[in-house]
Amino acid sequence: MPDDSLFGPDNLPYGVFAPSGGEHRVGVRFGDHVIDLALALEDSTFAAADLNPFLAQGPARWREVRGRVRELVESEIPAEAVHSLAGVSLSLPIRVGDYVDFYASIDHATNLGRLFRPDAEPLLPNWRHLPVGYHGRAGTVVVSGTEVVRPNGQRRTDSGAPDFGPARRLDIEAELGFVVGVGSGIGRPIDIAEAETHLFGVALVNDWSARDIQAWEYQPLGPFLGKSFATSLSAWVTPLAALDSARIALPEQAPPPLPYLAADQPWGLDIDLTVQWNGHTVAHPPYGRMYWSPAQMLAHLTANGAATRTGDLFASGTISGPEPGQRGSFIELSWGGKEPVRVGDELRTFLEDGDEVVITASAPGPGAARIGLGEVRGRILPARDRTRAGLPRTSGTAL
Amino acid sequence: MPDDSLFGPDNLPYGVFAPSGGEHRVGVRFGDHVIDLALALEDSTFAAADLNPFLAQGPARWREVRGRVRELVESEIPAEAVHSLAGVSLSLPIRVGDYVDFYASIDHATNLGRLFRPDAEPLLPNWRHLPVGYHGRAGTVVVSGTEVVRPNGQRRTDSGAPDFGPARRLDIEAELGFVVGVGSGIGRPIDIAEAETHLFGVALVNDWSARDIQAWEYQPLGPFLGKSFATSLSAWVTPLAALDSARIALPEQAPPPLPYLAADQPWGLDIDLTVQWNGHTVAHPPYGRMYWSPAQMLAHLTANGAATRTGDLFASGTISGPEPGQRGSFIELSWGGKEPVRVGDELRTFLEDGDEVVITASAPGPGAARIGLGEVRGRILPARDRTRAGLPRTSGTAL
Repeated sequence: MPDDSLFGPDNLPYGVFAPSGGEHRVGVRFGDHVIDLALALEDSTFAAADLNPFLAQGPARWREVRGRVRELVESEIPAEAVHSLAGVSLSLPIRVGDYVDFYASIDHATNLGRLFRPDAEPLLPNWRHLPVGYHGRAGTVVVSGTEVVRPNGQRRTDSGAPDFGPARRLDIEAELGFVVGVGSGIGRPIDIAEAETHLFGVALVNDWSARDIQAWEYQPLGPFLGKSFATSLSAWVTPLAALDSARIALPEQAPPPLPYLAADQPWGLDIDLTVQWNGHTVAHPPYGRMYWSPAQMLAHLTANGAATRTGDLFASGTISGPEPGQRGSFIELSWGGKEPVRVGDELRTFLEDGDEVVITASAPGPGAARIGLGEVRGRILPARDRTRAGLPRTSGTAL
Repeated sequence: MPDDSLFGPDNLPYGVFAPSGGEHRVGVRFGDHVIDLALALEDSTFAAADLNPFLAQGPARWREVRGRVRELVESEIPAEAVHSLAGVSLSLPIRVGDYVDFYASIDHATNLGRLFRPDAEPLLPNWRHLPVGYHGRAGTVVVSGTEVVRPNGQRRTDSGAPDFGPARRLDIEAELGFVVGVGSGIGRPIDIAEAETHLFGVALVNDWSARDIQAWEYQPLGPFLGKSFATSLSAWVTPLAALDSARIALPEQAPPPLPYLAADQPWGLDIDLTVQWNGHTVAHPPYGRMYWSPAQMLAHLTANGAATRTGDLFASGTISGPEPGQRGSFIELSWGGKEPVRVGDELRTFLEDGDEVVITASAPGPGAARIGLGEVRGRILPARDRTRAGLPRTSGTAL
């Protein structure tokens, strides 16, 4: 739902839209309207199908444009540059370079450790020393609203051998995604103090996860097909500048991080997420509890000299707080499927075909304002018929 | 070294070159010459900085162009379209979409299992059921000849806590890379019988690996900074059509693969690699021994509906045979650093600063011809000075 209080003059997130029958171009959301920046600013940088050309122009330009848009919305915008949000289609805001997913919530990592390795220390020895992460599939990042086909894959059976069929433990991961504006060359680590000059903004991510496929495949090289079928990204990217009032201290890090991960800035973000399952709120994950900051993630990601590019996306990993109602995945909310979750009049563990998940978020703005982070929405379609591959068809809705 | 017998009329691999002072464009290697295709064929598809526009045109067009180039080299090529290989600079032949690295050699996986988990079964339970793989960093794929800066990173110490500094166990992985020509949409798995219509060709890959960084970071989400600092790709992509005479049966797969991984075509490739370390041959990895085929890798990669794009690159993982001299990584050749390798007059375990590695390969062609796969070459530069990040400088050459 458009909400003026969440998308007021202190927010002004960027996205890519197409008016009915028109071409995609960059816009700014203001209330329940979209401002066509190429027209409003008379600047062809924004007559583009993604934000990348603008992002590559760097932080001075980001500030200048934000200032000009702020002036526009506080004075008068040419009518031909304003569209109703309801009348446009939104597309993926960035052309994604590399996509990395971290594992930065101590509560999430602890919960998954307890579920997967019940007899061992839940946190592995490296967890408090570095932001654990891995590369995901950039080519299957899709915009909010894209329907998600239940993946087929190998699932372990009681015999020890796998069979092949629709994932039975289809899950979400409620995350924040961070968009790299200005890249860094190969062999040139980004110092943590420079993170702000490279990071453009923040979006919402749902990193859909097929837990049964993942559990069978992930050793020793990590998640692959259990994640790579779809990752949903919100249509709106909120510039970091809109989140100044949300900056808070990180929770204590013990042991203290190595010098290359030590920041002298408050890099925590007081952003509250809401997870809705078929219209019913099932969780309120608090981003402010995250152990590792986006600046630490970026400094770590490049510490070995890895290059970054405009449009690179790195996500936080599932955001979970210490309370049961703060867990950002269904495997945690249902405790491995053993404690079904109340979803309206029904009980659920993992996603059934037709289910829809909407993740929203907001943060404190200046004064009484709040900053909305848009939404990331997706509905589950049944798995693809396997008869195409000569296999018998089975239902995709079994738990 | 240019070698006419390896780059004759049955090979004709594609690359991207720039004549001195000129722009990058697509060329075909013939002996020790490069043919400028945009000029020779009067076709602007090839006046491009990468092969992607050509790759996207699909297999009928690949066949047509290969036929026309074959006719050209057997008749007369306009002089202005021919350059000496020594006089041009070569760049990355493809704009890489997603980069995936597999783990398809049973000998390599067994060796690493023995080294890392000496008291357990060397192959994990999933290994014979699916081609294990993970996503790497597309943005740090570099062309052969690019120097590789030794990465810094977290290394475990005897205290249990890590320190930060230059990798001490810097290694190679000799691999083949497979280039996707025509992508597939999200939710549309590539049937194994269709692999040939999507796969354009084969290149050589050196997936540089910092074993100490990798060992500390990789649980539970897989390799990350231990790999993402650089992956080198040969400048020449050999079309699959040039490898018809190299097609052989796969080694037996037991248990038989699930139906979506079962091919009725001989998808093994009789390609022999050579690894040179500072000019001394240290290994001859045989690709023909690989357990999983590229068609199986592609069918698996997309079985969950993951999209592929023109320019996607997936690599085989380290190629190792059963004999000690057939191992495609130094961690295997030196058995975890315990058995130094003779490199000319010196003994080595892992890479020292200044070391150079060159991987070459060839395959049977029609009749007596052999098909060369070019080379992937890289020299190690010392680690970046850490004083920039406020840390004391240490040597990057310790074992």
